[in-house]
Amino acid sequence: MSAAPVRPQLDALRWRDVEVLSYKREGAAPFRDVTRQVLFDLPGLACQLRYFEVAPGGHTTLERHVHAHAVVIERGRGRVLVGDAIHDVAPHDLVHVPALAWHQFVAADDAPLGFLCMVNAERDRPQLPTPEELARLCADPAIAAFVRT
Amino acid sequence: MSAAPVRPQLDALRWRDVEVLSYKREGAAPFRDVTRQVLFDLPGLACQLRYFEVAPGGHTTLERHVHAHAVVIERGRGRVLVGDAIHDVAPHDLVHVPALAWHQFVAADDAPLGFLCMVNAERDRPQLPTPEELARLCADPAIAAFVRT
Repeated sequence: MSAAPVRPQLDALRWRDVEVLSYKREGAAPFRDVTRQVLFDLPGLACQLRYFEVAPGGHTTLERHVHAHAVVIERGRGRVLVGDAIHDVAPHDLVHVPALAWHQFVAADDAPLGFLCMVNAERDRPQLPTPEELARLCADPAIAAFVRT
Repeated sequence: MSAAPVRPQLDALRWRDVEVLSYKREGAAPFRDVTRQVLFDLPGLACQLRYFEVAPGGHTTLERHVHAHAVVIERGRGRVLVGDAIHDVAPHDLVHVPALAWHQFVAADDAPLGFLCMVNAERDRPQLPTPEELARLCADPAIAAFVRT
C-alpha cells in the first residue's frame, strides 16, 4: 500500500494507488459481480478499511464468521440480510454485522451497491452454510426468496 | 451504542441512534466548529469509526499522536495538513495520518468538511505542539499561513 498521505478519488469510488481486485478467488464461494479495494491496511492500525462494490443484480457471498463488520453504504441501492432480517439500504446507512450472523449484500437490479467495510486486520475465515443451516435459514419464506447461493 | 444491525441516515450525515457530540471538551485544545459522531465502537472490533464535521471556516486541533488515522472525506471541501504538506481535499479522497505526524483539518470558508476517521480503539492521547515545535513547523511560510492555533 502506498504511503502517500492523500490519495485523491480519480473516478467515482476509484482511487490513485488503489487496485481494483476480485472480491474472492473465482469458484471459492458463490458471489456475482463484486469488486474489492483495500483502502487502508497499515502496520499500526488494528483494522482494515475496504471498499466493495456490487454491480446491479450482483451479490456478495452468504456467509458468517466470528469477526464483525462495520459498514457504511457509499453508493447506489440494495438490500442486506443480517441474521434473520432483510433491510433496504442507501448511501450513508450504517450496517453492523455481529459475530456469527449470516449476512449477504445484494445490489438492486438497476443500481450498484457500494460500501465501506471495517474489519479487524486479524480475523477468522468466513464459513459457508451447510445444507442444514441453509434449510433452517430458508424456513423463513422472505429469506428463502432473498438469498443467492 | 445501539446494537441495531441497520441504522439509516436520517438527515445528511446524521443517523438514528447516533449522538452529535462535541469534538472535544471546550477549552481543552484549540478548535472551532467541529462535531463528532461515533458510528461504530463495538467490543469485538479493534478500531472505532467516527464521523467528524467541521463547519465552514472551522478547524480541528493542530496535534499529533502515536496512533494513526485512516480518513475518508465524505462531504464538502477543505484543506488538510499532514506532516509538512498541505493538501486540498474533496469527497472520497483518502487521507492517512501516520504516527507522530502533525495534522489539522480546515474546512473551506464556504463549505463544511465532513470525514470518516478510523482509529485503534486503544490509543494514546493527542499532543499539542510546544512553542518550539510550532515555530519549527511555521518556518515554512505556507504552513505558517495555514495553521490555526
